[in-house]
Amino acid sequence: MFLTRTEYDRGVNTFSPEGRLFQVEYAIEAIKLGSTAIGLKTKEGVVLAVEKRITSPLLEPSSVEKIMEIDEHIGSAMSGLIADARTLVEHARVETQNHRFSYGEPMTVESTTQALCDLALRFGEGDEESMSRPFGVSLLIAGHDENGPSLYYTDPSGTFWQCNAKAIGSGSEGADSSLQEQYNKDLTLQEAETIALSILKQVMEEKVTPNNVDIARVAPTYHLYTPSEVEAVITRL
Amino acid sequence: MFLTRTEYDRGVNTFSPEGRLFQVEYAIEAIKLGSTAIGLKTKEGVVLAVEKRITSPLLEPSSVEKIMEIDEHIGSAMSGLIADARTLVEHARVETQNHRFSYGEPMTVESTTQALCDLALRFGEGDEESMSRPFGVSLLIAGHDENGPSLYYTDPSGTFWQCNAKAIGSGSEGADSSLQEQYNKDLTLQEAETIALSILKQVMEEKVTPNNVDIARVAPTYHLYTPSEVEAVITRL
Amino acid sequence: MFLTRTEYDRGVNTFSPEGRLFQVEYAIEAIKLGSTAIGLKTKEGVVLAVEKRITSPLLEPSSVEKIMEIDEHIGSAMSGLIADARTLVEHARVETQNHRFSYGEPMTVESTTQALCDLALRFGEGDEESMSRPFGVSLLIAGHDENGPSLYYTDPSGTFWQCNAKAIGSGSEGADSSLQEQYNKDLTLQEAETIALSILKQVMEEKVTPNNVDIARVAPTYHLYTPSEVEAVITRL
Amino acid sequence: MFLTRTEYDRGVNTFSPEGRLFQVEYAIEAIKLGSTAIGLKTKEGVVLAVEKRITSPLLEPSSVEKIMEIDEHIGSAMSGLIADARTLVEHARVETQNHRFSYGEPMTVESTTQALCDLALRFGEGDEESMSRPFGVSLLIAGHDENGPSLYYTDPSGTFWQCNAKAIGSGSEGADSSLQEQYNKDLTLQEAETIALSILKQVMEEKVTPNNVDIARVAPTYHLYTPSEVEAVITRL
Amino acid sequence: MFLTRTEYDRGVNTFSPEGRLFQVEYAIEAIKLGSTAIGLKTKEGVVLAVEKRITSPLLEPSSVEKIMEIDEHIGSAMSGLIADARTLVEHARVETQNHRFSYGEPMTVESTTQALCDLALRFGEGDEESMSRPFGVSLLIAGHDENGPSLYYTDPSGTFWQCNAKAIGSGSEGADSSLQEQYNKDLTLQEAETIALSILKQVMEEKVTPNNVDIARVAPTYHLYTPSEVEAVITRL
Amino acid sequence: MFLTRTEYDRGVNTFSPEGRLFQVEYAIEAIKLGSTAIGLKTKEGVVLAVEKRITSPLLEPSSVEKIMEIDEHIGSAMSGLIADARTLVEHARVETQNHRFSYGEPMTVESTTQALCDLALRFGEGDEESMSRPFGVSLLIAGHDENGPSLYYTDPSGTFWQCNAKAIGSGSEGADSSLQEQYNKDLTLQEAETIALSILKQVMEEKVTPNNVDIARVAPTYHLYTPSEVEAVITRL
Amino acid sequence: MFLTRTEYDRGVNTFSPEGRLFQVEYAIEAIKLGSTAIGLKTKEGVVLAVEKRITSPLLEPSSVEKIMEIDEHIGSAMSGLIADARTLVEHARVETQNHRFSYGEPMTVESTTQALCDLALRFGEGDEESMSRPFGVSLLIAGHDENGPSLYYTDPSGTFWQCNAKAIGSGSEGADSSLQEQYNKDLTLQEAETIALSILKQVMEEKVTPNNVDIARVAPTYHLYTPSEVEAVITRL
Repeated sequence: MFLTRTEYDRGVNTFSPEGRLFQVEYAIEAIKLGSTAIGLKTKEGVVLAVEKRITSPLLEPSSVEKIMEIDEHIGSAMSGLIADARTLVEHARVETQNHRFSYGEPMTVESTTQALCDLALRFGEGDEESMSRPFGVSLLIAGHDENGPSLYYTDPSGTFWQCNAKAIGSGSEGADSSLQEQYNKDLTLQEAETIALSILKQVMEEKVTPNNVDIARVAPTYHLYTPSEVEAVITRL
Repeated sequence: MFLTRTEYDRGVNTFSPEGRLFQVEYAIEAIKLGSTAIGLKTKEGVVLAVEKRITSPLLEPSSVEKIMEIDEHIGSAMSGLIADARTLVEHARVETQNHRFSYGEPMTVESTTQALCDLALRFGEGDEESMSRPFGVSLLIAGHDENGPSLYYTDPSGTFWQCNAKAIGSGSEGADSSLQEQYNKDLTLQEAETIALSILKQVMEEKVTPNNVDIARVAPTYHLYTPSEVEAVITRL
Repeated sequence: MFLTRTEYDRGVNTFSPEGRLFQVEYAIEAIKLGSTAIGLKTKEGVVLAVEKRITSPLLEPSSVEKIMEIDEHIGSAMSGLIADARTLVEHARVETQNHRFSYGEPMTVESTTQALCDLALRFGEGDEESMSRPFGVSLLIAGHDENGPSLYYTDPSGTFWQCNAKAIGSGSEGADSSLQEQYNKDLTLQEAETIALSILKQVMEEKVTPNNVDIARVAPTYHLYTPSEVEAVITRL
Repeated sequence: MFLTRTEYDRGVNTFSPEGRLFQVEYAIEAIKLGSTAIGLKTKEGVVLAVEKRITSPLLEPSSVEKIMEIDEHIGSAMSGLIADARTLVEHARVETQNHRFSYGEPMTVESTTQALCDLALRFGEGDEESMSRPFGVSLLIAGHDENGPSLYYTDPSGTFWQCNAKAIGSGSEGADSSLQEQYNKDLTLQEAETIALSILKQVMEEKVTPNNVDIARVAPTYHLYTPSEVEAVITRL
Repeated sequence: MFLTRTEYDRGVNTFSPEGRLFQVEYAIEAIKLGSTAIGLKTKEGVVLAVEKRITSPLLEPSSVEKIMEIDEHIGSAMSGLIADARTLVEHARVETQNHRFSYGEPMTVESTTQALCDLALRFGEGDEESMSRPFGVSLLIAGHDENGPSLYYTDPSGTFWQCNAKAIGSGSEGADSSLQEQYNKDLTLQEAETIALSILKQVMEEKVTPNNVDIARVAPTYHLYTPSEVEAVITRL
Repeated sequence: MFLTRTEYDRGVNTFSPEGRLFQVEYAIEAIKLGSTAIGLKTKEGVVLAVEKRITSPLLEPSSVEKIMEIDEHIGSAMSGLIADARTLVEHARVETQNHRFSYGEPMTVESTTQALCDLALRFGEGDEESMSRPFGVSLLIAGHDENGPSLYYTDPSGTFWQCNAKAIGSGSEGADSSLQEQYNKDLTLQEAETIALSILKQVMEEKVTPNNVDIARVAPTYHLYTPSEVEAVITRL
Repeated sequence: MFLTRTEYDRGVNTFSPEGRLFQVEYAIEAIKLGSTAIGLKTKEGVVLAVEKRITSPLLEPSSVEKIMEIDEHIGSAMSGLIADARTLVEHARVETQNHRFSYGEPMTVESTTQALCDLALRFGEGDEESMSRPFGVSLLIAGHDENGPSLYYTDPSGTFWQCNAKAIGSGSEGADSSLQEQYNKDLTLQEAETIALSILKQVMEEKVTPNNVDIARVAPTYHLYTPSEVEAVITRL
């Protein structure tokens, strides 16, 4: 079984006899090796929380960026290959800036997500912006536009879904179960912060500190929490 | 037999000794893994109904788009790889908009379908718009033009057929049989809605709710049913 | 023997030690799987007749187009991969329209056929219009120009021949024998219609109806028979 | 021996350890499967004669073109893949027309032959006019210019030779021996016609008729014999 | 295990079933063969120190450049393939010069590092500046901008981190441990020099001399130590 | 030994572990299959003599061109693939004509040789003029410029040497030994003619006639001997 | 061990699991097959000396150029594939001429060397100037600029080093040891000539003559010794 599978899984973009695209499935594996990220949507706004793996005490924790601003009304948490994520986020930043310039208004969160996924889908096609392999990254995209707050989830196949809450990365399975138990649509933003961090805490192998987690909200603009704001959430736990 | 087959099926666009194109056949397999979609043409207009697989209660059902508008007189239901379908639909949207702009009138449903299939056929040719593999998606294209209502069905080989009724996706075999039994040309639009949903119900493994099915009609303009409109059809069952 | 053959037959455009081009031969196999088409030339004009495989009663028979107009004085019947045939016919339509525009007169049937075959020959060369594999289709091209009526036959190698009568597709072997027995140059157009349909009837596995055959003539302009015109021919049998 | 050979013969344009180019040698094999063509040079002009394989009585013999005009002072007989030959002849026609346009005089026969061979040599280089494999065709090029009548012979390697008489195709071996016995430089054009046809007759498996052979002369302009002119030569035998 | 691994590791940019990019991992191995380099950030500025392998007494030590200036406020120490490093540094120099020219101010250290990593990530994509394989080099980038001193570390995957102190190359494992023991944020620049050199001394197999180590600081501008300045640090040990 | 060799020798331009380029070595083998050519430099000018293999009495001997004029002061004798040689010579003709046009004086023999070798070296690089494999030909280039007479020898690797006398092709080994014995710098042109032809005679398997050898001199302009001039040299033997 | 190595060494530019680039290592092997070249730097200038392998007494020794002028202040000695070396030197000549034209002053020796190495590093990238494989050549680059005399050594990886003395080619190992024993910084240019030639003499298998060695100096301009100047150095030995 494994032997026949290997016949199809090295062509970058080739269907197997069962109709599967193995390179995309393997890229999804890359994400399962990544650190955990969690997003929750509330009526007040969206919360993102990520685990940061600080492999050495000499690393500057703030340089391990797992949550990044795309535009003032959109932020993104990532799991997987960081360099790939940066390329996607940079692409989204250019798209949202161009949109503001051309139309004089912010790009909607869905259009931004679609633009990211268009780039992700185009791998292996040899044009200038696309990669020669799938992007090995999943993103949680949190935003706020004329339709209110929204949370999107993308995967390496270029597909995206809108969610109320979602976890990605190595701890996503357990985290998703916890989210389903604890989530409801009437959470306050503060409750969402607490839930996100308490679930991260469960899946992390070490003590939660302002150094090894990042939290951000889009409510209605993007804000990455300072160490003392993170400390305050930890204290509430 | 399987061994010699594998000699030909990895070349993206190569004939086997029996004159078959395996990559296209494997892409068709990808569709058999997809959710079921059904279309019925009546004299009043065309009805599309799809199953939505909501894998988590935290997913926003409305973001799992399996029916999309192409132009105000054309809609499309899909089964297979969603990101591939979005690329095709986006291509068709640009084509229909260009046609309106150039000729001051809507593009016919057949021309729109042909434009989609031209793109699907061109895979593996390395030009800008085409993919490096077949599109892993089937579409039901419902429209209304100067020739009245029409329903088209496309597959990954870039071939299309006009139908009175058609099912695609994992449940298509059973659904097609049911359609042949229940379809006649004098159905009202309402009867078509009921038949579509009752057949979807048979092939779905869970209870039908406004969250896990979508219904749309083109009669003569595209309209995606609101949850309460879907609820009304469910009640009629 | 088969083993050494497989060494050469996957290169898209490579000679085997015996001087054969296997991919072209395999594309010809694709045509042997196709539905049967027949053409007969008379002094009054040319008749084309094709079998249409209607796989489901819900399919719109008129959408299974196996005979297509190229220009008002040229029509084409096809067997093999329909999407490939559409690409060739579309190419020929553009060529004939350009010719009318540039020279103010219709393109000859032979030049049109040559233009089709130039495109067919160019597969595997990576330029914009050509395919990355041979076109898996044979065409019967019926036309009428300053030299009177003519019938051409093309195959996937880009070669063409002028014929008095010719059958292509899965039933072509038996149909060709029948044509040789029954054809003579003094047939009337009506006799040609009858012969074409009676031979189609022999090779088809089901009863001939206006739904599962198409007939067209170029005499001197292209005309696709209406269902009642087809019915009239069936009645004459 | 055969095993190690197969290591080198699939690269389109790669030397084997013995310094051989197998793809070119295999293309030459394709010509050995082709019909026989014969050319003879006399002081009065050059005669070309070819066997035409009419595989069905319904084929129009005149459409099986194995002798084609390049310019009014140059004709060409071919053996091998007809579609390849048409591409080469079409290229030569454009070259000779351009030459007439630019210089106001006909292109010499040698320059025309060189232009054909330049195209043949360039296979596998991916530019616009060249093929991705060797051209599977040999040509006899008969012409008449300021140096009087001349006959050239080309092969798939892009090499050419000037000859007094030459046979190509499946019967070339026997035909070449007969030519060496019967040729002398003082033949009249009529004697050359008779010799060409009598040798063709020996290598053909069926009776010679105006339908299955073509004869042309360049003396000093190209002329393809009408069926009755061919009949006259047959009668002289 | 090794056998199945080799199935995936030669594709320049292909995921293995476990989601790994082997060519990038192998490039990281190339760095483990390289000489050791160390960086330390202090409040006064950043210190870089590298081992130089002088394979012959006839080599000019100053031509073995393992520390290079990027701009007057940024320097870089490297380990791995020197020619690759030069390409990256040259790219960064052009970027920083362009930035000064366009904006009239120095490029920040993070933007410079990001520009380097963008180039490193793009390998295998065939555009003009990128390489056809990963860059086999790690860089320590020391700089001083409006945010004060900073130290970055890049690897062949195009990822970068900000650090207080970091070692790369063959001795990096031991050197990193020593750095964690000895580093604190209140070191003076002079103490940092001493620590860097004493750790280099531990991992080098020969006596430290001004010929086989290089030291540089960015405090706030780049300065490569002269042999006598290096000698002075050695003396302090 | 042979087995491991085959691992490297099909890549068009790849080093083997011993630092060898097998495709170039195999192209050199192609020359060892070619006919013999000899060049001798005297103070009066350079003599070239070649064997012509006339495989059929019906071939026009003068069309088997193994010595060609490049410019009025440069000629070239060749051994190997004739079509390759024609491409190189045609390239050199264009270069020398351009040089005359741009600078108003003839190109030197060395620059002409260098231009030929630049083209030969560039194989496998996919640009417009270069081949996708090494040129399978060696050239002897005889010329006369401001430095007096000179003779160059080129091989498929794009390397060239200046010689007093040199033989290439299947009989080159024996011919080179004879040249070393018989050559001295004070030979007259006539003596050189005699030596060249007598050595050719030794390595040829048939009687030397004006039909199966060609002789040319550059003294100081290129002149290809007429059959009677060749006859005169034969008589002198 | 050898078997697994062959898995990685044919990709032109691919890392092995140990982080090695085999094609570059094999190109370095090509140089070990080359003739020996030696360079020595003195305060007065730089001396280059090379062995010339004169394989036949009929070769013109002066045409075996192993030392070439790049600009009037820079010369280069080479070992390995001569045609590759010529391409590099020609590239350097264009660069130095462009520099003089643009800036009105000579290019420094280091910049010239860097330009050569940039080209060498870019192999396998398919752009116009680069090769499809590593350059199989090492260069000794001797020059004199505003920093005085300098000697550089380059290898196929695109890396370069500055040296006081260096030997390359088949005899480099022994020659380098001798250089280390005999070299000191206070050598006169004449002493350097004598040392270079005496070391060459040790590694050559035949008697040193003005025909089989070349000597050049850059002091401060490039000068290739005449045979009698070489003879004078030989006499001094």
